[in-house]
Amino acid sequence: MWASGKRMNFASDNHYGASAEILGALSAIGAAPDAAYGDDAVTRRVRARLCDIFERDVAAYPVINGTTANSLSLATLVPPHGAILCHAEAHIAVDECGAPEFFTHGAKLVPIEGADGKIAPAAIEQSLRHFQKGFVHHAQPAAISLTQATELGTAYTPAELEAICGVARHHGMKVHMDGARFANALIGLGCTPAEMTWKSGVDVLSFGATKNGALAAEAVIFFDPADARDFEYRRKKSGHLISKMRFVSAQLEAYLANDHWLANARRANGLAQRLAQGLAQVDGIEIAHPVSANAVFASMSAARAQKLRDAGAKFYDWGAPKGGRVLARLMLSFATPDEAVAKLIEAAK
Amino acid sequence: MWASGKRMNFASDNHYGASAEILGALSAIGAAPDAAYGDDAVTRRVRARLCDIFERDVAAYPVINGTTANSLSLATLVPPHGAILCHAEAHIAVDECGAPEFFTHGAKLVPIEGADGKIAPAAIEQSLRHFQKGFVHHAQPAAISLTQATELGTAYTPAELEAICGVARHHGMKVHMDGARFANALIGLGCTPAEMTWKSGVDVLSFGATKNGALAAEAVIFFDPADARDFEYRRKKSGHLISKMRFVSAQLEAYLANDHWLANARRANGLAQRLAQGLAQVDGIEIAHPVSANAVFASMSAARAQKLRDAGAKFYDWGAPKGGRVLARLMLSFATPDEAVAKLIEAAK
Amino acid sequence: MWASGKRMNFASDNHYGASAEILGALSAIGAAPDAAYGDDAVTRRVRARLCDIFERDVAAYPVINGTTANSLSLATLVPPHGAILCHAEAHIAVDECGAPEFFTHGAKLVPIEGADGKIAPAAIEQSLRHFQKGFVHHAQPAAISLTQATELGTAYTPAELEAICGVARHHGMKVHMDGARFANALIGLGCTPAEMTWKSGVDVLSFGATKNGALAAEAVIFFDPADARDFEYRRKKSGHLISKMRFVSAQLEAYLANDHWLANARRANGLAQRLAQGLAQVDGIEIAHPVSANAVFASMSAARAQKLRDAGAKFYDWGAPKGGRVLARLMLSFATPDEAVAKLIEAAK
Amino acid sequence: MWASGKRMNFASDNHYGASAEILGALSAIGAAPDAAYGDDAVTRRVRARLCDIFERDVAAYPVINGTTANSLSLATLVPPHGAILCHAEAHIAVDECGAPEFFTHGAKLVPIEGADGKIAPAAIEQSLRHFQKGFVHHAQPAAISLTQATELGTAYTPAELEAICGVARHHGMKVHMDGARFANALIGLGCTPAEMTWKSGVDVLSFGATKNGALAAEAVIFFDPADARDFEYRRKKSGHLISKMRFVSAQLEAYLANDHWLANARRANGLAQRLAQGLAQVDGIEIAHPVSANAVFASMSAARAQKLRDAGAKFYDWGAPKGGRVLARLMLSFATPDEAVAKLIEAAK
Repeated sequence: MWASGKRMNFASDNHYGASAEILGALSAIGAAPDAAYGDDAVTRRVRARLCDIFERDVAAYPVINGTTANSLSLATLVPPHGAILCHAEAHIAVDECGAPEFFTHGAKLVPIEGADGKIAPAAIEQSLRHFQKGFVHHAQPAAISLTQATELGTAYTPAELEAICGVARHHGMKVHMDGARFANALIGLGCTPAEMTWKSGVDVLSFGATKNGALAAEAVIFFDPADARDFEYRRKKSGHLISKMRFVSAQLEAYLANDHWLANARRANGLAQRLAQGLAQVDGIEIAHPVSANAVFASMSAARAQKLRDAGAKFYDWGAPKGGRVLARLMLSFATPDEAVAKLIEAAK
Repeated sequence: MWASGKRMNFASDNHYGASAEILGALSAIGAAPDAAYGDDAVTRRVRARLCDIFERDVAAYPVINGTTANSLSLATLVPPHGAILCHAEAHIAVDECGAPEFFTHGAKLVPIEGADGKIAPAAIEQSLRHFQKGFVHHAQPAAISLTQATELGTAYTPAELEAICGVARHHGMKVHMDGARFANALIGLGCTPAEMTWKSGVDVLSFGATKNGALAAEAVIFFDPADARDFEYRRKKSGHLISKMRFVSAQLEAYLANDHWLANARRANGLAQRLAQGLAQVDGIEIAHPVSANAVFASMSAARAQKLRDAGAKFYDWGAPKGGRVLARLMLSFATPDEAVAKLIEAAK
Repeated sequence: MWASGKRMNFASDNHYGASAEILGALSAIGAAPDAAYGDDAVTRRVRARLCDIFERDVAAYPVINGTTANSLSLATLVPPHGAILCHAEAHIAVDECGAPEFFTHGAKLVPIEGADGKIAPAAIEQSLRHFQKGFVHHAQPAAISLTQATELGTAYTPAELEAICGVARHHGMKVHMDGARFANALIGLGCTPAEMTWKSGVDVLSFGATKNGALAAEAVIFFDPADARDFEYRRKKSGHLISKMRFVSAQLEAYLANDHWLANARRANGLAQRLAQGLAQVDGIEIAHPVSANAVFASMSAARAQKLRDAGAKFYDWGAPKGGRVLARLMLSFATPDEAVAKLIEAAK
Repeated sequence: MWASGKRMNFASDNHYGASAEILGALSAIGAAPDAAYGDDAVTRRVRARLCDIFERDVAAYPVINGTTANSLSLATLVPPHGAILCHAEAHIAVDECGAPEFFTHGAKLVPIEGADGKIAPAAIEQSLRHFQKGFVHHAQPAAISLTQATELGTAYTPAELEAICGVARHHGMKVHMDGARFANALIGLGCTPAEMTWKSGVDVLSFGATKNGALAAEAVIFFDPADARDFEYRRKKSGHLISKMRFVSAQLEAYLANDHWLANARRANGLAQRLAQGLAQVDGIEIAHPVSANAVFASMSAARAQKLRDAGAKFYDWGAPKGGRVLARLMLSFATPDEAVAKLIEAAK
C-alpha cells in the first residue's frame, strides 16, 4: 500500500512504521498467558535463530531500541574509569544525550575524525597515545565502537574491521558494533553476518531491527557469552527488562523469518542506489559518500534544497551550510514508495 | 477465546498477553511514515485524552513499563541526596533491582512497615524523625511513593491518600503514585481518576496499562507540568525515548478508548471477588487482605497449595511458609478465563 | 595542655584536634620535594608497617576520612546491582548522606536491627530471605558492613565476627569493617589486629586514625590485595587521590609509631570506663550499653541532661526523648582532659 | 633551607611540600576541641577573607584538592544531560580519570583546540554549532571551563575572559575557572582577583593553594552564592566534607595572610622568567609558549633533554617527541631553589 504512495519522506528510516509481517506476529500472540520477563518460548527461539545466523553460540538479549542496545553493551564491557573510542559523528557520541555516559557511570567517549564516517587504525593509534596504560590519572581505553553501516551510509569491509579489531586486541580493548543498520550493511557488502562481526574480531553487536521494519526491537549479541557477565542486572536496573518480553522477541522472530530482514534491507538499499544514480546525473548535485547502505548524502545548493522541500520532500541537512551549499541526507526505508524516489529525482532536475 | 480456556494461570497479571483492541491499534498504524520520538499525532491525542480523564492540564509521557515510569518519576523529583519513603514491600523497594537508585544517582529508599500493604501517616512521621532537615549528613526526604492498588491488592481511599499527602506537603515532600494497577484500584474504589490523584495531593503518577491489556505501555503523568522539568532529557539519556513512539502511544489510545481500560479492570476485579468469595467458603482457607483490586491473598496449608499446583494452578507464594501455612498470591487478569476461576475453587475444596 | 582543661566537650571524638606527634610529623616534611600521588617513601613505609601490624601482606591506601574509606571499600567490592547489609544505625546507613550509594552507583543498603549496635547472624539470615540469588529483580547481597567499635560503643568479639563472616562466606558475600574507632575496639577487646579482622574473616577494613589523633587520615586495607582491583581508579575518579599524599601518609606513620595509636585509644577508653563508673553510681542514671570503647551512653531524665548542659557539658542526645528520659551519648577522645570527666560526674550528681 | 638546595626538580609544582607558614598554622591548632565539619571559627574567617579579596559576598567552601574543586563546581552547575566545553588539554579533560563525569553523573566534556592552551570565542561558537538547544538527543551545553593559568603556563587576559564569558552568557552557559595556579596567573597579569573572575563574568572558581604552598587545600568559590545550591550535599555525598575541617581552612588562612600566597607565586613566576630567559639564549632551545605564570615549555632536541636528565634534572616531556625534538615542561614552585635554576641553565648550554 505504502509502495504506491508519493509522499517524499526521506527524513529518517525510523519515520516509517512497521511491516505487516512483524505486526502480524504480535497479533498472533494475542492475550494468551506465557512466562514473563523473557522466560518464554519465543525469546528462546530468537536466541537459537541468532546462533544459526551468526554460526556460533551467542548470548542474545532483546531490547527496545538502539540507544539502549549501545549503552548496555558498552556498560557491560567498559568500567566507569574506561574510555570508548568512536567516530566523531557516531550516534553514541552525538545523538544519545550522553546515554553511554549514564549507563557506564561516567566513562569517557573519545571522538576520532575520519573520512566517510569511518575511523582508521592509524587514527586510533594516534588517539591512544594520549592515554597511558595503568596511569591512574587517565581514563583507560577499554572499547572501540564502530557503526555499521556508518552514520554516512558507508560500510566497513571485513578487512577494515579486522584491521581495527587487531588494534583493539593489541591494546586490550573490546570492540562494539552499533548495527542499527546492520542488515543494510550486510546487503551492501555481500558478506555473512559472521564475517562482518566475530570473524573480524567484533565482541558485541547492537543488532538493529527497528529501522528496518520492526516497531521497537533490537538485540544485544555477545559473541562470547562470558562477556555478558552482569548484563541482565544492568538491563533490569535501567528499566529495559520488559515484562511481556515475547512481544519484543516476536518482532525479532518475524524479522529473521523467511529472510524478511534481508529483503527489507535489499529493497531500501536498492532504492538508495537508484536515488543516488538519479541525482548524480543532475548538474550541480554531487554524491558526497559511497552509497553502501540505505543513505544518500547529496551535496547541492541551498536553493535547490529549498526547491525540493517546497515540492514536499522531507530530509535533514547534515551539518551547517557551507558556501551556499548544503549536504542533504536522504534516508531510504524498507517502506519508502518507489514513486517517492522517482518524484524526488524529477523534482531535483 | 481465552475466556473459554481452563488454564489456571494466577501467577501474574503480566503473564497474560495483550487485548485484541490494543493489538488492532498497532496493526492500524502499519508502515506509513510519521514524525519520530513522540512528535506525532497519536502521542498528542493521548496527552489530550489524559487531560480529559484527569480533568486537568497534565504533562504526560509514554514509556514502556512500570519500573521505568517509577524510576523516571522519582529521578525527576528527587535529588541524588534525597530519600524516598515507601512501603517495605513496595515494588520500587524490592522488585526493581535498585532501578530507582540508578536513575536518581543514588537516592535512598526508606522502607516503612504497614498493614495490608499500606503505609500510615503516623508511620511516615515516625520515619521522618530519623532525618534532620538541612543536616548535610542525612539524606533529605524528598518524596513518598505509594502503590495504588497496593502490592497486596488493597487500595488507599481518597481520604487515606489525602492524609498522607498532607504529611508530605507539610514536610516539603512530593508524592509519587505507582499506578501499575491504577485502573483496578479505580474500579475497586469507585472514585474518579482526579479524586484518586491530584485532588488528594498526588504529584506524579505512573499510569499503568501493561498489566491490564497493553503489550508494553505506561504513562508518566505530572499533574503540575512544571514538575516535569528535565524529564525528557532523563528519558532520552536512559534509553527510554522510543523512535517509533506512536506504537507505544497507540496502545494507550486504544486502552483509553471506549472505556476499554475500565472494562478490563472491572472484569479482573470481578473475577477476584468471585475467587475470594469461593475460597473463603473453603474450610482452612482464609483471605488475608481486603480484595480491592485484582489480587487475592489466600492463606492455606502448604499441603493444599501443593494440591492446587498438582491440579495445574500457577501462583506464587508470598514470602516464606510459616507454621506449615503459605500465603498464596492469586492474580486475576483482564484475560483470565472464567472457567479458570471456577476450576481453582473446585480444586481447593 | 588540653589535659589540664576543664572544658566538658563530649560531643564527638572528632571535635578534638590532632596530637603533637602527628602534627610534628607534618612539620618534619617541610617544603622539600618528593614524588606525588603516593609514589613516595612515606606512603611505602606506611604500607609496610600495616603489613607488620596485620601480620600479612595487605594492600593499603591512605584516604582522608571515614566516609571515603567506607564508600571506596564498598564500591570496590559491590556492583551497582548489589546490596549491602548493615546495622540500622550504621554510620554508612544514616550519617553519610548516601555516599555509599553514590560511590557504588546505586547499590542498596539493607538496614538490620540488633541490640547494642550489633547485628546477629540470625538477623542476617532472616534479611537474606528477602533476596533470591540470581533473580534479576532483586538487588544481590554482596557485602556485610560491620562497625567496630560500633556506633553504640560496643565491640564485636572475634567469635562474633567469625560467626557473621561465616554467614557472609556461605552466601558469597564479602565483609567490610568500618573501623573509624578500630583502635578503641582493639584496646577494649585485648586481641590482635589480625584476630579482629582477616583471621575472623573480614575482607576489607576502613582503618581510622582521624578520631584518635590524626587531622584527616584513614587507610583502606584489603587483606587480599587481589580484592583491591580497580580501587586506585575509583579513588582518583572520586577526587580522593591527594597530590602531596605524603602529608596524609605521614599522619598514619606517626600514628602507628611507638604505639601512639594504642596509647591514644587506651587513654580514651580509660576515660570512658571512669566516666561510666562514675555515672553508674548516680541515682537515676543508667548506662545503656556495655562500654567497650570510648563512648558512654547514659540514660537520664531530660531535666538532668539539661542541667549538665547548663553546667557547660556538650554532648548529643541519641534519638528522641522517650517518656521524659534521654539517651546521652558521651564521647571520649585521646585529648579529653581528665578534669572534664571528673567535672561531668560531679555535675551529674 | 630548600632555597640553598641544588636538586633540579622541575617535574611539578605539586612535588614540593608545604611552606613553614602553613605548617605552622596547623601546629597552632593543636588538639583543642572545636566544632566539626566546617562549623568552626577558622572556616568562617577564611570565607570572610575571601569576600575581602574578591570584593564581593561569595560562597566559599574548602576542599582538599583541585580535581575535587573542579568536579564539585561543575556538578553543581551542570545537569547530567549537560555538556562542558573546555580546552582539549584541560586538566579536567585529560588528567582526572573522568572525575567530572563521575560527579556530574555523566555529563559530557567537549574538547576544543586552541593555541597556547587557550580557547577562543570563535572556537566555542564553532563547537556549539553541533548542539541544538532543547533538542533532547543532544547533550545541552551548560558550562565552559577555563584554566587560569593554563596548562601551558599562559594566562587569559581579563579582556579575553570577558569575551569568552560573553559567549557563555549569550548561550545561557555558566563559566568555571580552574584556578589551580590562580595566584601565578594573577601575578603574571598584574590585575585584581575580582577582575580576573566575576568582573570578567566567571561564575565559579576552583581557587588553588596546594600547588603554591599548602599541603592539601583549595576553595570552591561561587561568586553568586545562589549558584551554590546543593553544593554542600554533593560535597558530603562524595566524601569531601572533612570532620576536622579547620585543618584545611587553617591552610587557606595562612595562605592568604600577609600576602603569603602572592609572595609564593611571585617567587615561582620570577624563577620561571629567569629560567626562560636563560634557556632562550641557548642555541637550539626555543621557548614554545609565552611565560605568564610558573611554567616554561622549552623545545629542544631529544639528545639535549637526555643530557639534562643525566645531569639530574627532573621534568616531563609534553606529548610525544616530534622529529627528534621534545617539548620539555619545566615547572617552578614557590620552593624551587634559586641554584636549581642556575644549574639547569648551565647544564643546558
